Amino acid sequence: MQKIAVLGSGSWGTALAIHLVRNKHDVTLWGRNAEQIELMKKQHMNAHFLPGIPLPDALHLSDQLLDTVKEADTILVAVPSHAFKELLEKIKPVWNSQKKIIWASKGLDPDSGDFLHNVADNILGNNAKTAVLSGPSFAKEVAQGLPAALTVATKENDEETALFFQELFHSDKFRIYISHDLVGVAICGSAKNILAIASGIAEGLSLGSNARAALITRGVAEITRLTDKLGGKRETLMGLAGLGDLILTCTGVQSRNYRFGVALGQGLSIADSLKSIDQVVEGINTSILIQQLAHQYNVEMPIVEQIVAVLNHTKTPGAAMVELLSRRPTHE
Amino acid sequence: MQKIAVLGSGSWGTALAIHLVRNKHDVTLWGRNAEQIELMKKQHMNAHFLPGIPLPDALHLSDQLLDTVKEADTILVAVPSHAFKELLEKIKPVWNSQKKIIWASKGLDPDSGDFLHNVADNILGNNAKTAVLSGPSFAKEVAQGLPAALTVATKENDEETALFFQELFHSDKFRIYISHDLVGVAICGSAKNILAIASGIAEGLSLGSNARAALITRGVAEITRLTDKLGGKRETLMGLAGLGDLILTCTGVQSRNYRFGVALGQGLSIADSLKSIDQVVEGINTSILIQQLAHQYNVEMPIVEQIVAVLNHTKTPGAAMVELLSRRPTHE
Repeated sequence: MQKIAVLGSGSWGTALAIHLVRNKHDVTLWGRNAEQIELMKKQHMNAHFLPGIPLPDALHLSDQLLDTVKEADTILVAVPSHAFKELLEKIKPVWNSQKKIIWASKGLDPDSGDFLHNVADNILGNNAKTAVLSGPSFAKEVAQGLPAALTVATKENDEETALFFQELFHSDKFRIYISHDLVGVAICGSAKNILAIASGIAEGLSLGSNARAALITRGVAEITRLTDKLGGKRETLMGLAGLGDLILTCTGVQSRNYRFGVALGQGLSIADSLKSIDQVVEGINTSILIQQLAHQYNVEMPIVEQIVAVLNHTKTPGAAMVELLSRRPTHE
Repeated sequence: MQKIAVLGSGSWGTALAIHLVRNKHDVTLWGRNAEQIELMKKQHMNAHFLPGIPLPDALHLSDQLLDTVKEADTILVAVPSHAFKELLEKIKPVWNSQKKIIWASKGLDPDSGDFLHNVADNILGNNAKTAVLSGPSFAKEVAQGLPAALTVATKENDEETALFFQELFHSDKFRIYISHDLVGVAICGSAKNILAIASGIAEGLSLGSNARAALITRGVAEITRLTDKLGGKRETLMGLAGLGDLILTCTGVQSRNYRFGVALGQGLSIADSLKSIDQVVEGINTSILIQQLAHQYNVEMPIVEQIVAVLNHTKTPGAAMVELLSRRPTHE
């Protein structure tokens, strides 16, 4: 049994906290919003993010960040990528290198455009025992105890931390595969949200399943080019954190980025589309950051370019799709 | 303008014939069932396979196989894989090496377990100008003129035939990418139907989107192992004929193999599940043929094994899924 602090009481943090309680760990779920935490205590539920799913009695809830971290052996970060850096800086004074840390956040740091594993190294030092959890995982299904398979990635030489987290999360319904490709996992986790927006736009424009499948496939090709350039591994792209998450995010109505795209495709403005989701849409910030990476490393990423243009109001969703779906192809 | 014979008046043959007429070719669609052809002439529609979609006036319909082939410059075969060999043997007497031939059939020859390109070579000779059309393509959407992107694959040294067919099919809405990996395309086109059945079973059992995405991803891993062993290319797996078609077939309710799996997962018998589809379910024969290949080449393919066990009545769909989703994982 581990004493675990889950930081971030959105849908994914809450679902993972529930799962870890089921795995017989001692779990405290922290949320920054004291009122929300109070409400969750009263209702025994995260009514806003996971309505209808009761919280286990053994799950502790807290709005006290430093106390929660101080008392834990293991830290699971589940805040949006834009809040990642600030959170690590806040907890650093009470953190020590004995406390293993894993994050389920996907995206890049908006200030620096850095990968989250670089942000973590910069703040916590290179010797921190860190890992990332990624893969196809709608929070609600995990909270409901439905089967899922995910990837835990650590640094190349850190099999020990990988095995620790595999054991921590593993159950009959929750399979953990190990990877050491932090770069590949980070790129996939970020870029998939952009593709999900594109895929949603195609759906919103009623372009059909063939177009959507083609778009996702061409998206994988452009993510592959970026991964190659940045030293990630193609195996990661073909795995759970790559393909698996991509399939889920780009075809499932549970995905916020996908639904945001659908709203855009149906003709809603960006503001109204966002309002209709009412949660963080990671792909919006990410698209600009990935575009910067693509330019910096001279990688052709037409889908990313078109999505940025749509989000910058320089192109309509319809015009972007025509551009993407009528490019004259050559060899794959 | 080419004079084209489309052989096979199922949904895909009919949709491709409609598309080729739109591309201003002179197209005759042949079907073996004289009554069906007569009805299509009367109704200006393929009411059984593509209800509600009118056939273009310029499309010729025929139940005379040899006449149709004799008069054509180009032949497109769109019969199920189990009928492929017999059809080629029938048309051979009126075929000559000037008549280019492409097939949209997916699967393996049921008698020999051979790839269709080997069957074609055996019957027509190595010098025949042959190609295969593959990729994510629900027939109805193509018939409706919605966008799609597909792969045309030919032999390694036959760029000429590849370019010919790219030109033949290409339009603003229908993009053709060229490949020369016949083996990879054949494996993907066959194996995806088995994965679609598995994916449908997971859906029918209400295991959720996470489980389905994990299953598809692990399926890609086992198809990759087979492709590697048989000399296919990983690029093909990552492309339209691989990933693209897989995403479409494993997530779309328009896929027969997927719907067959859903019916099985919901508890229907194999016979009743088949009845509910009322079209050829390629994955049934294919699963046994791919299993044979896997055994012959010593490739581990757990999903294929479980689907064969379900179709052999030696395992329930539920037990098969438990086996697949609770295997103790290691590295991806």
